Amino acid sequence: MFSTPRYRAFPALRPGDPVVAIAPAGPFDRASFEAGLEIIARRYEVHYDPGILTRQRYLAGSDARRLGELWRALADTGSRAVFCARGGYGMLRLLAGLEGVAPVPKPVIGFSDITALHQLLQRQGLVSVHGPNLTQLSRLDGSAQTRLCEILESEAPAGELAGVETYVGGTAEGPLLGGNLSMLTRLLGTPFLAPLEGAVLLLEDVGERPYRLDRMWTHLALAGVFRQVRGIVLGEFIGCEEKDAEYSSADVLRELAVGTGLPCAAGFPIGHGAQNQPVPLGVRVRLDADDRRLTFLESSAG
Amino acid sequence: MFSTPRYRAFPALRPGDPVVAIAPAGPFDRASFEAGLEIIARRYEVHYDPGILTRQRYLAGSDARRLGELWRALADTGSRAVFCARGGYGMLRLLAGLEGVAPVPKPVIGFSDITALHQLLQRQGLVSVHGPNLTQLSRLDGSAQTRLCEILESEAPAGELAGVETYVGGTAEGPLLGGNLSMLTRLLGTPFLAPLEGAVLLLEDVGERPYRLDRMWTHLALAGVFRQVRGIVLGEFIGCEEKDAEYSSADVLRELAVGTGLPCAAGFPIGHGAQNQPVPLGVRVRLDADDRRLTFLESSAG
Repeated sequence: MFSTPRYRAFPALRPGDPVVAIAPAGPFDRASFEAGLEIIARRYEVHYDPGILTRQRYLAGSDARRLGELWRALADTGSRAVFCARGGYGMLRLLAGLEGVAPVPKPVIGFSDITALHQLLQRQGLVSVHGPNLTQLSRLDGSAQTRLCEILESEAPAGELAGVETYVGGTAEGPLLGGNLSMLTRLLGTPFLAPLEGAVLLLEDVGERPYRLDRMWTHLALAGVFRQVRGIVLGEFIGCEEKDAEYSSADVLRELAVGTGLPCAAGFPIGHGAQNQPVPLGVRVRLDADDRRLTFLESSAG
Repeated sequence: MFSTPRYRAFPALRPGDPVVAIAPAGPFDRASFEAGLEIIARRYEVHYDPGILTRQRYLAGSDARRLGELWRALADTGSRAVFCARGGYGMLRLLAGLEGVAPVPKPVIGFSDITALHQLLQRQGLVSVHGPNLTQLSRLDGSAQTRLCEILESEAPAGELAGVETYVGGTAEGPLLGGNLSMLTRLLGTPFLAPLEGAVLLLEDVGERPYRLDRMWTHLALAGVFRQVRGIVLGEFIGCEEKDAEYSSADVLRELAVGTGLPCAAGFPIGHGAQNQPVPLGVRVRLDADDRRLTFLESSAG
C-alpha cells in the first residue's frame, strides 16, 4: 500500500551528547540565542563557531561562512544533533552549494526558513525535526522543550497533537513533510523540493496577508502539489490578518483547503505561535481531520 | 541565429476602435477607474461589464465572474484591445480555467498581477503590452499615455527607453518577456510560465523588502531562469527599502545581478513608479547595458 519513500530515523540522542548550533539563515539577537543555548546546554554539550554571531545585512554572515558551517555540521560524525539559531532568510542562497553533501543521520532542529534544509534532508531520505529555533526556545512554555527531548531521545513515536478546526473531514496516512508555506513555494520549479507524493503536508506561516496566503497556496496548487499529497495539517498562521477586513486568514485558508478536497485540519500548535510543538518530518503519521488529531506512527529516533 | 520563438504582432488600433476594460485580479477604487476610462475614451470606444465593479474580499468578484469576463475579452472578435483595470491579486486563480482559450491577436494592456496574463499570451505566441492599468493611468504624466497610443497604433517599433545604472555591462538581444518579479516567481514549477529561453528579462516590483527581493531572485536562479535568459532589464522597485537599514534594495539587486553575469541595467521607468512607460512584451529588443539603453527592434502592431 505504501509506495511512498521511507525515511531513515536518526540515532537516539543521550544526555551529555555533543551537539552543534548553526545559523544558516538570518542574523539574530544574541540574548535570545544565549537563552536558547542555555536550555539546550542543560542536557547536551553544545558547540558552535564564534562566527555564528556575524551579521551581514539580513544574513548571519556571508554565504561562504554559513555554507561552511552548515556543511561541517551535516557531515561531521562528532556531533549528534544540529540546532538552528534562527530562520529569517538565507537557506535558499546555500542550496546550490550543498549539492554533494552527505549528511550523517542525526536530528536537525529548526523551522521557518529552515524548511528548505528539511527538504534537503528529506531528499536524502532522512528524518529531521520541525521545531523551535534556538532564539525562539526560551519564549516557549516548557512543553515544547520536553517534547523536543522525547523526540530526540525516545524510541517511541512522538505523542499525538490536537488541532482546533476541521476544514475538510477524512483521514490520511503518509510521511509528514513540509513546514513553512512561503519557503516551500520558493522550492517549486527547482531541483530542491523533496518528493511530496503520498505525503501528509504540514503548512504554517507568519506575517503574510490573506491574499498572499492565497497566492502561495494557489502556487502549490498550480504546481500540482495537492494532486500529490494525501492530507493537510495546518499549523499556526501568526500575524496573517488584514487590517479592518471582514474576513480572516482562516476564512481564506478554509476555502482553499475545501478546494483541494483533501482531509485537512487546522490550528495545530506548530509554527510561529507561543507553543511551536516539535514534530519529526519524514515519519509516517495519521491525520484524522474529523477528530483534528495527528498521530505519529513511527519513531524518529531508533 | 535566433532559435527563440517569434511572437505575433497585433493588428494596429485606430482611433474610434471598440476596446474593453476588464478586472481579472483585484478590486479597485471607482474614481481612479473612471479617470482612466475617461482618458482611454478620448480615443477609443470603451465597453465594460457592470459586474467589473464587484468586490469580493481582495478580488474583483468571484473567480467565475472574472474568468468569464476575461475569456470573453480574449476570444471576442468585436473588440480590438483589452485594458486591465488593476493588478493586485487574482490572475493566478484563473490560469487553470483558461486552458483552451484561443485569444484573438489584440493588445492586452496591464502590469503587476497582470504579468500572469502576459505570460499566458506569450505562451500562445502573442505580443502584449506591459503598461499602466486603468486605475493608474490618470496618475501618470502624459508621456506614458502618448507612448501607449504609439505602441497600439503605430507600425514603427516603440521608442527606446533609458535606464539609470549599469549593473553588469554588455549587450543582449531577444524577445522582451517578464514583468512583475513576484508574479513571475509564482509561475515557477507550473505549466503557466512562458518559455524564457533567449529572452531579455524585464523585472519590477513594489512593496517587497530587500530580503524578499533576494528570495524571489534566488528562486528564479534556482529554477534555472538566469541560465536561459540573455539579459536583464530592471524597472522600478518602489517601496522596497528596509527601514533604518544601511543598505538599499538597489545594493541587493546589483549584487544579485552581478551573480548572474548577464548584461543588466537598472532604473528603467517601468513599473509601479510615477512613469510606467508601456513596453510591448514578446517583441525583439536590444539591451545595451553599458549605455543603459533599451531599443525595440520590431513593431508590436502590424
